[in-house]
Amino acid sequence: MNASLSFDLNQYLCERVRLIDNALERYLPGEDVRPQSLHRAMRYSTMSGGKRLRPVLVIAGAEAVGGEAEMVLPTACAVELIHTFSLIHDDLPAIDNDTLRRGRPTCHVQFGEAVAILAGDALFASAFELIARNADAVPAERVVQVLKLVAEASGTRGMVGGQMVDIESEGKEADADIVEYIHRHKTAALIRASVVSGAILAGAEQWQVDALSRYGELTGLAFQIADDLLNVTGDPRKTGKAVGTDAARGKVTYPALFGVEASRQRAHQLVQEAIATLHPFGENAEPLRAIAYLMVEREG
Amino acid sequence: MNASLSFDLNQYLCERVRLIDNALERYLPGEDVRPQSLHRAMRYSTMSGGKRLRPVLVIAGAEAVGGEAEMVLPTACAVELIHTFSLIHDDLPAIDNDTLRRGRPTCHVQFGEAVAILAGDALFASAFELIARNADAVPAERVVQVLKLVAEASGTRGMVGGQMVDIESEGKEADADIVEYIHRHKTAALIRASVVSGAILAGAEQWQVDALSRYGELTGLAFQIADDLLNVTGDPRKTGKAVGTDAARGKVTYPALFGVEASRQRAHQLVQEAIATLHPFGENAEPLRAIAYLMVEREG
Repeated sequence: MNASLSFDLNQYLCERVRLIDNALERYLPGEDVRPQSLHRAMRYSTMSGGKRLRPVLVIAGAEAVGGEAEMVLPTACAVELIHTFSLIHDDLPAIDNDTLRRGRPTCHVQFGEAVAILAGDALFASAFELIARNADAVPAERVVQVLKLVAEASGTRGMVGGQMVDIESEGKEADADIVEYIHRHKTAALIRASVVSGAILAGAEQWQVDALSRYGELTGLAFQIADDLLNVTGDPRKTGKAVGTDAARGKVTYPALFGVEASRQRAHQLVQEAIATLHPFGENAEPLRAIAYLMVEREG
Repeated sequence: MNASLSFDLNQYLCERVRLIDNALERYLPGEDVRPQSLHRAMRYSTMSGGKRLRPVLVIAGAEAVGGEAEMVLPTACAVELIHTFSLIHDDLPAIDNDTLRRGRPTCHVQFGEAVAILAGDALFASAFELIARNADAVPAERVVQVLKLVAEASGTRGMVGGQMVDIESEGKEADADIVEYIHRHKTAALIRASVVSGAILAGAEQWQVDALSRYGELTGLAFQIADDLLNVTGDPRKTGKAVGTDAARGKVTYPALFGVEASRQRAHQLVQEAIATLHPFGENAEPLRAIAYLMVEREG
């Protein structure tokens, strides 16, 4: 099913993830620096074997327009910190009350609620420090564009807004409009911002920004549908999360509304549409094509 | 005691606060827009009659180097949103568990904990959107400098880090080093960043940035000492907060360590030092001089 047999996605991901993990290791405050408890929690939740999908998309977005990983690395790490911050806060007792994440106790279970709230806040702040730091490598105008994009994708018009509607909708009658709103805001917004940020930092033209924005939106939706499906049919040993929790909570999800088979088809259709937007990028977009397939075919 | 009889601080504050409140009203998302509950909470906590000290300092910092309020208004509002975000999270049951703020129920009492956590997060994100927006009025290089400064002052090397040490120190033996650390990070960092941001956006030279940075640091410390004093000796009808809560919680404060009189003297001494740094700015710094006095002489 993969479009290109010559492109080795595993090797690509392995190299990029190593780059990202090394950079995160350098950027995160040390556990020997005050306040140690906060830094321990920030590192515990960030360095926990995540897939690094969003930072890889920042890099792949840059590469699609002829840029390189090094020039976008601070912003790549920034979006991973924002993702981690959102997981820590979503897991809190007052929100999703999750105790397991990537096979380990969640941040508040490990360090207490106060530390978890503040560790999330500190990661969010660090993300914006990193975006500012990206101005060492690229013109400030591009950094400001990325700042606007990432801040908007994180806040009430993006991730946090989507999470709010998700919570409010629990236990209520599912409705296609609400499911679409939640997916688009809670998940797709930051995925879209990631790939577009990489492209902007690497000096993309407007048509390239527009095409990658569409790619990010479509794959972001597909990714969330795949995530909902894993909550129904996944193997907890591979996902590192409990299964069936969405249904138990009365979460509004795509499979709950349309069924497993129709959801699977919809995810694949979105990926096909996303890949079609990449046509003008030629070989430079090989990583983005392969990642699009991976986003719906993953097991965890 | 006021250095200049000709400068009318009340009128100055009245005009600047009106400007800030109008801008916040425009910038905050509407309560008729989804997710409404989040936007209600964001507005409830932001539009609650705060003194707007930090945004006024952004404007006064710009004016000290010959700039104008209009060119720094988005960033002025941004630091107020960061301040509000920190109050909402600090008030949460897992942290300070405060139920009253500015004479009204705190955000989580009014809207529930989940909404309060997410409203804080959304305000923090909105703050960075506003900083990006400031690039409409000033060069992007200045905006990136401000972004770096404000993000650092908010996170683990600033406000959030100070709050973490504050919580950890509750009920433990007070120690001058710890009190200094808490004041410098929890309060002074954002106050310093506010006045310096205004100056940078208005095109300050390096010696001006350095002098105002020192001013911000000194007045920030004085402000926190005054705040601790109000918690001992204040009138709850004027402060809008309960009195004696720091002592009841075993908080590490300046008066607890050095006594009320020595704390008062220290605050005034810091203000004198802060005002001395303003000498080269002449008349342009009249607002900053008057605000420095106000910060330790306030009743709420």
